[in-house]
Amino acid sequence: MTSTPSRVRMSPQQRRDQLLEIGVRLLRTHPLDELSIELLAEEAGISRGLLYHYFGNKQDFHVAVVRRAVQDIYAITAPQDLDDPMAQLEASLGAYLDYVVENHAGYVSLVRAAAGGNDELREIYQASRRALSDRVFERADGLHDLAAIDTPATRLLAEGWTALVESSVLAWIEDPAGLSRDELLARLAGALVALIVG
Amino acid sequence: MTSTPSRVRMSPQQRRDQLLEIGVRLLRTHPLDELSIELLAEEAGISRGLLYHYFGNKQDFHVAVVRRAVQDIYAITAPQDLDDPMAQLEASLGAYLDYVVENHAGYVSLVRAAAGGNDELREIYQASRRALSDRVFERADGLHDLAAIDTPATRLLAEGWTALVESSVLAWIEDPAGLSRDELLARLAGALVALIVG
Repeated sequence: MTSTPSRVRMSPQQRRDQLLEIGVRLLRTHPLDELSIELLAEEAGISRGLLYHYFGNKQDFHVAVVRRAVQDIYAITAPQDLDDPMAQLEASLGAYLDYVVENHAGYVSLVRAAAGGNDELREIYQASRRALSDRVFERADGLHDLAAIDTPATRLLAEGWTALVESSVLAWIEDPAGLSRDELLARLAGALVALIVG
Repeated sequence: MTSTPSRVRMSPQQRRDQLLEIGVRLLRTHPLDELSIELLAEEAGISRGLLYHYFGNKQDFHVAVVRRAVQDIYAITAPQDLDDPMAQLEASLGAYLDYVVENHAGYVSLVRAAAGGNDELREIYQASRRALSDRVFERADGLHDLAAIDTPATRLLAEGWTALVESSVLAWIEDPAGLSRDELLARLAGALVALIVG
């Protein structure tokens, strides 16, 4: 038997990653409940049977896609080693805002699925919120104003702040109400300082 | 024919109001999807048939109960003519917090139903949020710090702030994280000022 070197062989893990990337891309313009195994098969050009091999059922597929999407959000909002902690915070916020703008349909459906009855998606979503709000305390050494105030109370408030950010960003995308992107980011960052510094 | 003066006759409107009050009371300890016509009939001591006369079906009953619940929240958070605008804000916030503490099961289920797929409940819920955030701008004459800053942009931010309030209050009820009721109210009020004054 000879191998066919002209064709790139993907490991099962690589194949699954590739399919998830297609799923996340579809989520940009499709709400979660329109994301079917059939649609994915069509986009990926492979059989439904093979897809069921990678994702047991539609719910497992949705969970895997949402897990990947929240990993993407976590990655793009990573600190960028800016010296000014407020500039850093606004840069992370800006990356989040741009993500929501670019992935609006899917993001809204994810929020609704998580807030509604789906326990597994809610858990992923809440863990993601917590991870994003924990970011605030991650680089405490560089955050002059925010140092030494990492307590359970400020973590609670920072997590509540992510609800403000999400709600305001979604409303702003619908209608900016005369608010520039920079002004929105500055107001949201200022609210965090008020919450955790007091 | 003689009337029976010993018995108080209720108008259909009064009867419906009474049933709604029972529904709202049940919502304190029952999530919305456990609020059945059967349960209401049992609590009210009248037939299911009569209940269907007042509320066409279970969905209509739920919508009517939720409408009444958000009216109650709006009423208890009314301004109390306090001179200090921050004290006023914290008094309204405190009334909201106490309501959520006392009606926890039903409130959580209402938020989930509204955030999930139910369009009619979502609309009532969002209108309620908007009404509560509009309160911030209602007594602008007494709010020295907040006067003359009532714009579409600040209304957007104040509405986002209600998401922070709801999320933080629900988390605080689960685990206060060392935060006193007064400190929580003060932080939330401070965040609003940061958001709309900048």
